[in-house]
Amino acid sequence: MAGRRPGQTQTRADILAAARNQFGQRGYNGATIRGIAAEAGVNPALVHHFFGSKEQVFAAALNLPMTPSSIVDAITQGPRDQIGERIIRLFLGVWSAPDSRQTFFALVRSVTSNEQIASLMRQFLEHTVIGPVSAALDLPPLRVTGAASQGIGLAMVRYVIRVEPLASATDDEVVELVAPVLQHYFTP
Amino acid sequence: MAGRRPGQTQTRADILAAARNQFGQRGYNGATIRGIAAEAGVNPALVHHFFGSKEQVFAAALNLPMTPSSIVDAITQGPRDQIGERIIRLFLGVWSAPDSRQTFFALVRSVTSNEQIASLMRQFLEHTVIGPVSAALDLPPLRVTGAASQGIGLAMVRYVIRVEPLASATDDEVVELVAPVLQHYFTP
Repeated sequence: MAGRRPGQTQTRADILAAARNQFGQRGYNGATIRGIAAEAGVNPALVHHFFGSKEQVFAAALNLPMTPSSIVDAITQGPRDQIGERIIRLFLGVWSAPDSRQTFFALVRSVTSNEQIASLMRQFLEHTVIGPVSAALDLPPLRVTGAASQGIGLAMVRYVIRVEPLASATDDEVVELVAPVLQHYFTP
Repeated sequence: MAGRRPGQTQTRADILAAARNQFGQRGYNGATIRGIAAEAGVNPALVHHFFGSKEQVFAAALNLPMTPSSIVDAITQGPRDQIGERIIRLFLGVWSAPDSRQTFFALVRSVTSNEQIASLMRQFLEHTVIGPVSAALDLPPLRVTGAASQGIGLAMVRYVIRVEPLASATDDEVVELVAPVLQHYFTP
């Protein structure tokens, strides 16, 4: 936040609050930078200036540590027969870094109790992860949602509920356990 | 509740509150009917009279629609090569019945925000499901926690976040998608 004036901080917060509302109400495809700017009472150019594209506003609204397209690239670029391991290592990296771990904790907590966050998460998964991954891999979207369910359940059991021995297993043990199983969603 | 006197209803509620506290504080193995009765200010015989065994008090405290041992039996009894399908069909049955669906919704919501419930859920999974299933199948407990993570993630994505196309898929489509993948946790 160095060098940012107090008025800028407030404006950024107003834009993100408007974005969460617009994405929640209209969905990812229906929401527009123009609509978000109107609700926040600012010029659309300012939204672009602060955040960039709609995808980047969306990532900032959910406080994601990376953009959806960088997630999609990390999943789809590389050998198809190692996709299970690639996803699990990406997942473990995100949950190991203290900053993104806090973000994901907050997301998991709020997604079960806050319908606006649940709707944002649904948009995020359907339009910016599952759709593009499904298209890039020429795989039915249903199979990609299956893989997503394994990832989210792993977060719940290992980090939120902390069930042993999965909670204390090393990252390598988790890769060895889950990667080959997850792989089956991608190579039916 | 037909035929139950108001005093009985309050006593049952007191015993269940004491049970949630004792299981949360001492764990499933450390908690005793005697300790629960002492905290509720009643005779241990009354706890037995209302609920039965410690396992049954535990199921009532978590408001589970079935006892842990009936879950374990449903998973472990039957052909080993159909265990993935057996678990998914049990899971879909529980989430389809309105009563148990409400219970599991409440559990998923509270497990992410309430440490006492998270601790109860951890006890429930470790001691009354994963341990017995692991022993009955002669399989490392880590593999059973992997399968549990797939089940919990399926609940999150299909019923809580409601990500399409998994949210609207028929039960048979979910079985076809998840059962063969889940099976790999049990037949490495």
